[in-house]
Amino acid sequence: MTSNELQQSCLARQQRLRSKLERKKMAALLVTSLPNIHYLTGFHGSAGVALVGRAESVLWVDPRYTLQAAEQAAGVKVVEARGGLLKEAARWIRRKRLRPVGYDDANLTCREFAALGKADRGRERWIPAGGMVEELRVIKDPAEVEWIRKAGKLTVEVFEDVKGKIRPGTRESDLAAEIEYRMKRKGADGAAFETIVASGVRSAWPHAHPSSKLLKENDLVIVDMGAILGGYAADMTRTVYLGRSSPRVRMLYNKVREAQERATAVARAGRLSGDVDAVARKVLERTKLERYFTHSTGHGVGLEIHELPHVSRGDKTRLQQGCVITVEPGVYLEGFGGVRIEDTVLV
Amino acid sequence: MTSNELQQSCLARQQRLRSKLERKKMAALLVTSLPNIHYLTGFHGSAGVALVGRAESVLWVDPRYTLQAAEQAAGVKVVEARGGLLKEAARWIRRKRLRPVGYDDANLTCREFAALGKADRGRERWIPAGGMVEELRVIKDPAEVEWIRKAGKLTVEVFEDVKGKIRPGTRESDLAAEIEYRMKRKGADGAAFETIVASGVRSAWPHAHPSSKLLKENDLVIVDMGAILGGYAADMTRTVYLGRSSPRVRMLYNKVREAQERATAVARAGRLSGDVDAVARKVLERTKLERYFTHSTGHGVGLEIHELPHVSRGDKTRLQQGCVITVEPGVYLEGFGGVRIEDTVLV
Repeated sequence: MTSNELQQSCLARQQRLRSKLERKKMAALLVTSLPNIHYLTGFHGSAGVALVGRAESVLWVDPRYTLQAAEQAAGVKVVEARGGLLKEAARWIRRKRLRPVGYDDANLTCREFAALGKADRGRERWIPAGGMVEELRVIKDPAEVEWIRKAGKLTVEVFEDVKGKIRPGTRESDLAAEIEYRMKRKGADGAAFETIVASGVRSAWPHAHPSSKLLKENDLVIVDMGAILGGYAADMTRTVYLGRSSPRVRMLYNKVREAQERATAVARAGRLSGDVDAVARKVLERTKLERYFTHSTGHGVGLEIHELPHVSRGDKTRLQQGCVITVEPGVYLEGFGGVRIEDTVLV
Repeated sequence: MTSNELQQSCLARQQRLRSKLERKKMAALLVTSLPNIHYLTGFHGSAGVALVGRAESVLWVDPRYTLQAAEQAAGVKVVEARGGLLKEAARWIRRKRLRPVGYDDANLTCREFAALGKADRGRERWIPAGGMVEELRVIKDPAEVEWIRKAGKLTVEVFEDVKGKIRPGTRESDLAAEIEYRMKRKGADGAAFETIVASGVRSAWPHAHPSSKLLKENDLVIVDMGAILGGYAADMTRTVYLGRSSPRVRMLYNKVREAQERATAVARAGRLSGDVDAVARKVLERTKLERYFTHSTGHGVGLEIHELPHVSRGDKTRLQQGCVITVEPGVYLEGFGGVRIEDTVLV
């Protein structure tokens, strides 16, 4: 994606947000989460505050980022804030008599909001509006899909490169470190989350951190990994058995694979997100494994590793073309081990 | 530190917090930041809510963490929360008729606080109390100092190991990836922050991310790195010149080193944190370099990479034995390059 294409995308995203503002009768939205600022303006820094208004839009940055913001940001006036980003934003909102203004209640701390209210002398203009930009982000545009695809490809390549090291004697934490190292050497911005390598009985803990345990013969090994590229994340899990697998292990693996494949097949435009979860559960129910599937089937992926939609029991999000979600059923038998298989899927 | 010693430390920390609660006439403090929960209870998970009360203390965790919390946590009753951590905490507070209760306004989001207020049917019992635990954390106990020392030692070792690779032709991002890989291979929990490798004119950007630029002859190279060990961070910066340095480069380096050494010498019990900053600035002022020193001299280090106290202009924190801070003056000449030297220092 050229920077010009990105800027065009940002303008389109702001336009979609503006339509939402009109429908909700808001004068503007104060955007304080960094992924949302990146999404709407193209600016990718470690601090900033944006306001997308029905008339005007502004991005406040501190002096470190003035140059970078001027280069990257589209569709907003860049203002260098010397007196605190939120404070200057509140002052601007007051001066322009904007009302009501949405704020990201799911992201702003109580103290930040209090400062906003104080700078603003009165809170009656503010309405909680967390999630508005996150809802837009559910549908990815083609350039976003391309980045996620590239991040996924890199993730697969790294897994192929280290596959030979998934063998008895390798330390879990060393394998995880090797995976993250290779991601970066291949040009990833970094790992999208702490790489999981969980072996033996530890594979039955869905959120195990890599430990100093050595992989050993007859271990189930879960490797959950994902690279970030161009700001976009991928997410993938593979389960490997070290040795000649028993019928029980094969049964577990095959059932999880079947659940994963069937659930992936219903991840289509028009279906509900909860349907994907239901199909995975149904497959596992038949062999009484559903009770060991202790988490939801997946989640959206994009600028953050966990985004909307939830792919969980009863979720009513209508999937549309351009949604990117993970499908990752797993079963976990305490004292024995676990199996999880995960891909990132484009609807 | 044995787990028994850690538990003793936690009890002592809770006792210090209880004295503060009494002085402030609070019945309890609701603790929602994970480093604070780790510090007060010993529980080290990715989710939890604690309440330290003058009479009783509780730790709420979700079912994933019940076992781990029961093993790790000291001085608190562990409760498995199935209906949301904050909600159950609020219900407990209401049932025990605790009032007033402090909450971490610097950490809790508006939405979380609203949920708390709703569960609590009315907000009048809550008072903002962000920073109370952070203030206790300024003074490290001997076990904490030991961890930071070990993290620092590991950081130095990794720097020594990769020193030979700081040479023309090495890619900034590859060197950064190598550093983080070696930290983990040596047993670190991870890097305390994204390792900075900034070379040539990029060394003049204090917050540069490692790029795909290759190091080259006559580059100044800033390497800013730190490992986490036992949950505790270290922070260190070294500047290297690739080639025969000019008098200007030598002058810059020597002045920053002098500033760093003199400032470190005043980081003693009884001095103000702001004095450390002032001494560094004074050294640089003499050669008119102070205007290129665009950040503060340092910050506290511990369970987080940036903690109290600020080591910045005019800061009035009285340093005490057991404070751990960074001393890291730097000068940055745009279009030329930068020099920063940093150590983690025990007062």
